[in-house]
Amino acid sequence: MSNKDHCLKLFEEEKSRYIEEWRQFLQFKSISADPSFAKDSLECAKWLVKHLNAVGLESGLLDTSGLPVVYGRREGVQDRPHVLFYGHYDVQPVDPLEEWRSDPFAGQIRNGRMYARGAQDNKGQILYFIKALEALIREDGLKCLITVLIEGEEESGSRGLRNRLESWRDQLKADVLMVCDSGCVRAGVPCITMGIRGLIWLEIRLGGLSHDLHSGSMGGVVRNPATEMARLLATLHGAEGAISVPGYYDGIIMPAVGDKRLADKVPFDAKRFKSLIGVDPDGGEKGFSYAERRGMRPTIDVNGLYAGYGGPGSKTIIPAAATAKLTSRLVAGQDPQRCLDLLLSHLKRHAPPSLKFEILDKGIAGPAVSLSADSPLIQTAKEVLENVGGSEVDFTWEGGSIPIVAALAGVSGAEPLLVGFGSEEDCVHAPNESFSLAQFRDGLCYSYLMLARLSALESSALRVGVATRIVK
Amino acid sequence: MSNKDHCLKLFEEEKSRYIEEWRQFLQFKSISADPSFAKDSLECAKWLVKHLNAVGLESGLLDTSGLPVVYGRREGVQDRPHVLFYGHYDVQPVDPLEEWRSDPFAGQIRNGRMYARGAQDNKGQILYFIKALEALIREDGLKCLITVLIEGEEESGSRGLRNRLESWRDQLKADVLMVCDSGCVRAGVPCITMGIRGLIWLEIRLGGLSHDLHSGSMGGVVRNPATEMARLLATLHGAEGAISVPGYYDGIIMPAVGDKRLADKVPFDAKRFKSLIGVDPDGGEKGFSYAERRGMRPTIDVNGLYAGYGGPGSKTIIPAAATAKLTSRLVAGQDPQRCLDLLLSHLKRHAPPSLKFEILDKGIAGPAVSLSADSPLIQTAKEVLENVGGSEVDFTWEGGSIPIVAALAGVSGAEPLLVGFGSEEDCVHAPNESFSLAQFRDGLCYSYLMLARLSALESSALRVGVATRIVK
Repeated sequence: MSNKDHCLKLFEEEKSRYIEEWRQFLQFKSISADPSFAKDSLECAKWLVKHLNAVGLESGLLDTSGLPVVYGRREGVQDRPHVLFYGHYDVQPVDPLEEWRSDPFAGQIRNGRMYARGAQDNKGQILYFIKALEALIREDGLKCLITVLIEGEEESGSRGLRNRLESWRDQLKADVLMVCDSGCVRAGVPCITMGIRGLIWLEIRLGGLSHDLHSGSMGGVVRNPATEMARLLATLHGAEGAISVPGYYDGIIMPAVGDKRLADKVPFDAKRFKSLIGVDPDGGEKGFSYAERRGMRPTIDVNGLYAGYGGPGSKTIIPAAATAKLTSRLVAGQDPQRCLDLLLSHLKRHAPPSLKFEILDKGIAGPAVSLSADSPLIQTAKEVLENVGGSEVDFTWEGGSIPIVAALAGVSGAEPLLVGFGSEEDCVHAPNESFSLAQFRDGLCYSYLMLARLSALESSALRVGVATRIVK
Repeated sequence: MSNKDHCLKLFEEEKSRYIEEWRQFLQFKSISADPSFAKDSLECAKWLVKHLNAVGLESGLLDTSGLPVVYGRREGVQDRPHVLFYGHYDVQPVDPLEEWRSDPFAGQIRNGRMYARGAQDNKGQILYFIKALEALIREDGLKCLITVLIEGEEESGSRGLRNRLESWRDQLKADVLMVCDSGCVRAGVPCITMGIRGLIWLEIRLGGLSHDLHSGSMGGVVRNPATEMARLLATLHGAEGAISVPGYYDGIIMPAVGDKRLADKVPFDAKRFKSLIGVDPDGGEKGFSYAERRGMRPTIDVNGLYAGYGGPGSKTIIPAAATAKLTSRLVAGQDPQRCLDLLLSHLKRHAPPSLKFEILDKGIAGPAVSLSADSPLIQTAKEVLENVGGSEVDFTWEGGSIPIVAALAGVSGAEPLLVGFGSEEDCVHAPNESFSLAQFRDGLCYSYLMLARLSALESSALRVGVATRIVK
């Protein structure tokens, strides 16, 4: 496909401008988890609107109960597919700040990588898609109806967007839902994400002590909330790593043999994994493969655990309370509300009655999404990606969650197409997040070529495949 | 004993000066656990030296590897007892600072109570002893040889003083070791502390992950250090509250029937306990009484537990590491080094091999001390305290540790006399620590009358009792 050379030339010619715009986008502290950054998020959204307008989309802000959604729209040729693009302009918190080697909002390039919070997740990946749109519009090559939705609360549950989705149902009817918030399993080998896990969250506190107590005079007298929290969290898993919450696995749709084979086909480099991650991949349930544990099995993880004294030296106290933040990743067939209820009643049942058990926060981000490898859309994307990357394409069941995808697919009726160019070394959600210029370039090529292919198709051609399986 | 009225009159006349001096003493941020307060500690020590000199003791600073020890000495009459007094001028950290209702270093009096860090532990209790010395010296009533040792590192393990004890052995030979770092079980009823628990500490980390990981892409793939730390800490106790570390109870000297009877005789007000502490006293080992669990049984407590994200909202990470601060209180017959070794090898054995197990800190504060109720010294103190408090005296086996006491008793050959006027509502080690003027007054009366009684005794009279039982 000669178009690939065109894309590479485009990237080389425009690279310095792309980097400059990328830096502008990265400078905004759009951390949705912390309300004190709401103003920064709004500034970021306004910048995006201005940018989309300049690119050639009719753009503006859509109000939600929380941070606004940025939309962009451009009409297409009759009968061509309606492509709905989804991304998010919010980012994860940056602490521990002292571990960053450069300002997380400055966007420093070192060794061909852009370092900043959001460099990949999701600002970098949004930007290459917008740059592909820009080029196609400039060349009069874009024939699809395009709707862009970029929200500001993905990292904290997408509440604002989700609450408005029903009211926008008519405008969102689409054929394809393009999302580039995922990554590659192997650096340089493009990858189609065939499944994403669902997500629920929970924050609990064990306490009731009127204050931190002297561990001498009260040790052995009262129950220690920190010790009891540890004992409570230890009830969540069995010795073999399986979740011990009764009923938690009920209803899970086991992956098809073909899906499992595609997932296990992706080579796994254990040595490289250990050098990047620091430990062996021996977590999760015994008896399941790496790919299964990563994307096809549910988890319960402790994300934060706090009790008592954390300063220098020792402090001989019984902490007044202990707090734990938990999330659970869900797979096809698990109802999020049911899992949240099961988890909560398990924790309540195992908490010591003499301490105070409190639920500080709880919620559902979304159910899992599971796709079919046989659809014309996935097959078209596979061809485009074989062109971009060389020959191979990986199919992966991603462990992460893009909770809004299931909701957007449901409202729009569109078939999700989840292709992104992230890789493990990008350190998303951690200090020193980065995204290489090569990853950006591949994303640009894929977006350009895929949109060009979709521009040449009639929307009815996408409808002949197996229906997308979105399992609540 | 008419002398009690004399003491009460003294207190009334001198009260405002005592409060002023107390405030001066409390203003120093002598937090030994945090090295950044070393200068404040030194200022505090210098203030004490000046104060002891003014009172009539020959005073100065003794260098140690850490913070200096304040000494004071005044010769006595031949054949009268040598009284060694021990106290500490350091205090616990003050966090969480936002929970204090007044500046922890300002010394605010509200409703007859002095509120400040150290108001009781140990500055308030040191001061009433010094004020008793001052009055007796002024009245020419002090006949004992007095040696005062006030260290600056009790709250962080007394390392400096302990390392120097051997070199001061000759000067420290004494008959009585007076310590007022303890409290009453019932407010207003004087109490002799017959036992104090030993203490060891440990700080461990489970990690090895190169950074915080995305809980989606890595959940189920790697072991979660926060979850694993919870599981590890959960192995320390059985379902009935007993310590599960193999061999931990070996060698414990069970309390004599008479001791246990004295301990259980102290009335316990469960309703008042709950209103002060917030929870029922249902911690520790099943099958042991409140008094036994408090002072006669060992504990392992989690003092601090930290992993992952603690800010607002949620953060979907697998924390790179989890840290726990532990202390264990020991009883008569438990060798601290052996217990530390047992605890460490238990934790190592139960830590998952794929994570990195690190010992960040460990140490021994001291073994337990256990005394005899039959000695002439304890009987004399009982008579003085019956006079001060009305009629009753409680005997208690204190759950806390004054690690240096065992070491001081060993070096000096002195019999410990542990009488203090603290009470649970003083909130030592917690926000809003306080000590009432009435507690101060009782401490002054006891110190004055006890020193007067000892001044009238020949030291040989103290030697006829049962030997003090200091069990390593």
